[in-house]
Parts: sequence; structure tokens; C-alpha cells
Amino acid sequence: MLISRYEHERLTRVPDELIVEEPLEIRLDNHLVATTMRTPGEDFELAIGFCFSEGLLGDVPVTGSRYCATGSAVEGEFNVVDVETGGRAPPPTPRLGLATSSCGLCGSEAIDRLSRRWGRVVDASPFDPGVITAIARRVRSQQTLFDVTGGVHAAAAFDTGGELLAVREDIGRHNAVDKILGSLVQGGRLPAGGCGLYVSGRSSFEIVQKAWAGGFAVIVSVSAPSALAAQTARRAGIGLYGFARDGDVNLYVEQGSGGRP
Amino acid sequence: MLISRYEHERLTRVPDELIVEEPLEIRLDNHLVATTMRTPGEDFELAIGFCFSEGLLGDVPVTGSRYCATGSAVEGEFNVVDVETGGRAPPPTPRLGLATSSCGLCGSEAIDRLSRRWGRVVDASPFDPGVITAIARRVRSQQTLFDVTGGVHAAAAFDTGGELLAVREDIGRHNAVDKILGSLVQGGRLPAGGCGLYVSGRSSFEIVQKAWAGGFAVIVSVSAPSALAAQTARRAGIGLYGFARDGDVNLYVEQGSGGRP
Repeated sequence: MLISRYEHERLTRVPDELIVEEPLEIRLDNHLVATTMRTPGEDFELAIGFCFSEGLLGDVPVTGSRYCATGSAVEGEFNVVDVETGGRAPPPTPRLGLATSSCGLCGSEAIDRLSRRWGRVVDASPFDPGVITAIARRVRSQQTLFDVTGGVHAAAAFDTGGELLAVREDIGRHNAVDKILGSLVQGGRLPAGGCGLYVSGRSSFEIVQKAWAGGFAVIVSVSAPSALAAQTARRAGIGLYGFARDGDVNLYVEQGSGGRP
Repeated sequence: MLISRYEHERLTRVPDELIVEEPLEIRLDNHLVATTMRTPGEDFELAIGFCFSEGLLGDVPVTGSRYCATGSAVEGEFNVVDVETGGRAPPPTPRLGLATSSCGLCGSEAIDRLSRRWGRVVDASPFDPGVITAIARRVRSQQTLFDVTGGVHAAAAFDTGGELLAVREDIGRHNAVDKILGSLVQGGRLPAGGCGLYVSGRSSFEIVQKAWAGGFAVIVSVSAPSALAAQTARRAGIGLYGFARDGDVNLYVEQGSGGRP
């Protein structure tokens, strides 16, 4: 599309691309579990990663995923995805509110719940500060949607040497992380031992919750964590880095620090 | 707290403040309608603004709001807020998934639904490009939490002269907008004729949906809109600006352009 740009007090008409945003309805064995606004692409990964990171799968494997509208397995055309376990996943409890919300009425209750579900991440894999500070630039070089639109989040999984296992983009930071988790579920690579999770933007509670589900050793984001995110990472045993930009970085929580208070 | 900072390849220990994030359960006449992760503060505005922008209030006035735990009207201590209409609001329909999701299975259906609910914003109030490009800096000067934490979103309502009617901060961009809407509901200032809505970060569908509910004439954000956000703004008749930084700005949708296709 053509847009108007005011720059140095002059008005010009310039071409521009906008990031695509569409609702995706996620079903588990045909039970509706969530609707999320996402950037189409890797929809099966997103749906599987969401079910996994929300703890909806229990311990059972995913046997398939498909678009409901037609049963087609070709991605990108439809906005309803069913994740299939042959009915072996526990029936999802109807739940109001944010798909990603904690059910507890305070952050500590939510952390307790996660601790019971996922246990503690015990992973002392060494990540050099040079690897951590270089991740944002490495991911950026693979962000094809960002190049075009300038308005999209990214998540990535990387190893201790800084090699990228997967990079995913989405208008929602949490969706990008779910796409990463879904790709690792599909590849049989969870828990993600010896791996870090990169996210553009901030580290909220929700992001740490998903990293915990995936068993990542560290989380690296380009902006600030919340206080609850730091508290959750400490309890999980996950290292938490923020403001990883231009070769500098803050370390908020050491790997393996904290634990049950 | 003290954190570790790697800067120019040197490690130092520096003090740091993190933004607070806690769950808020929102009830309407004691029906649970949503749980959101938010930064405590202006919780009644957030709860009222959420109910308003999601169309849950119908046309009835809010008669009160209180923390459920004790019935206290003092903010900040609890994480459950009940918005009261004396039972006059329509009973909320149980709904799965994102609090802010569209119920339609594609973006166009969601826009149709909003169009039926809110009608078209007809507001030709003139906003000078100089006012638009100065808003981010004006809001920034009032962001007390950002000053301390560096990791929080802001929303603001402003008039055609660039005067700020209200500035609110939250870890969630959508929450910051709901706090603005709640403050305008409480002040009897909706629809927000002759006003613009400022948001840090991107303009997603959800943000335009809330601006539409509030009857704002224009939306200004510091990052990119999504394609669906632009489509929604065009249908609503709302002007949509993005990348409003350092005196420059992009205009994606003119006020009053588009309309029913």
C-alpha cells in the first residue's frame, strides 16, 4: 500500500508493507481451547506449542494437526486448527480470560502451580556472555518479516555456541514463542536441554512460563523483565537476561539460582 | 535489586528496579469475565475500561467498583475487581481464549461485528502533524514508571492541541489503553470526540477495537500497525498514525476515509 510520510516537515507518499494479523482458533481433540490474534504461518506449530506450553497435553503425544474447515493439512488458508491426541489428552477445562493468564489470584500462586507441573530446570550448560549479547543480531539477520514490515516480534531457540535451532516471527511475542515450542515438540527436541530461548521485547511472566514448560536453560530478551518474570525464573532455575543489545546485557537471574524458597 | 551488567566486555553489579506484574481477575456484577496480567494501579479504571471496550456494559452505567476480597474501595491491595451495574448489564457470555480476541474466525467477520456494535466514528477534528509527532515525547515526560524500570507501556488521551487528558502505564499495552478508557468512562467523557489515543508499541487489531469503542478520532503509535488494524481503522473512520518518532510520522489511514466497502 501507499502511505503518507511526514519527515523533516515534508509530506511524501511512500510504499509500505504491513504485518498480517488474523485470528486463529485453537482446538484440542476438537475442544475449543483458545483464540489468538496471530500472523499466519507455522499455524500447526503455534497450536501445538500453545497446547504444550499451557500444559494441556498432559504427557501424551500429539498424533496430528489439521485445519478444521476442510481437514486439509496445507497451512495458511484457514483460521481453525485442531491438535489431535486421539482423545488421550485430558479434556480441557473451560476457562475465561487471557489464554495465557495464570489461574491463581496472585503471582506466587501461579508460580506454585507451575512448579508442581514442570518441576525445576536443572541445566548448568555454560553460555558465554559473548554468545548471549550476539543473539539479537543473529536472529535479526533471519527475520524476513521484520525486514519487510518493521513491526513483528521474533523468538528463537539457540545452543551454547550461539547456533540458532529455530527462528519464528509473529505479531504476538507469545505466539512466536509458542511456534518455537511447537517446532521443538514436532522435532522431538523437548525438554530443550542446553538451549536458550530468545525473545524480542520484554520478558513477562507468560514468557518465562513458556520457557519453563520447554525446559530452556536461559532466556534472553532485548528489553526488561517484569518482577514476576524474575521471581518465576529464579524458582524455575532458569537464567534470565535482559536488554541484550549492541554487545551489552543485564543478568537478572543466574542459572540454577534460587529454587524453592 | 542488584543485577549483573556486562558492558563493553566488563562485568559490574548495578541496582535495578523491575516493573510489577500481577494477575487481575475482572468481574462484572460478580460474573468472572477475564483474568489479565497487569501492573497494579488504577485497577478500577482497568476493570471498567475492559468491560466497556469489550462491549460488556451494553448501554448501562457503572454504579460502582470494588475489590472483592474485602469489599474495600482502596486500590492496590487485591487482585480481584468487581464492576457493578446493579445487575443491569447483560449477563456476560462465557468465552474461551484471549480476553481481547475477536469471536469471528476471520478478521473481516470481527470488523463486521464491531461495526454493528459501535457504528462509524464521524469526527473531522483537525490534528496538525506537529501535534501528532510531538505526542510521544509529551507522554514520555509523564511516564514515571518507565523512568524507573525502562520496561512499561503507556497510553494517553490527547486533544487537537496536543494537551494530555490522561496518561496511564502498564506492562500490557492493551491494559494501558483500558485504563485510559476506564478513566474517561468514570469522568463521563466518552465518546472521546475531538480526541486522539496514543499507544507506545504497535497498533494491533485489539488497540483499534478499543479506540473504536471509545470513539477516538485518531490513533497514534510509535511502531507499526498490522494490516488488520489498518483495515479496521478505515472501516471505523479513525485516522491511524504509526512510527511517530523524533518529529516524523507515517499516516496509514486518513480520518473519515473508507467506510463500509
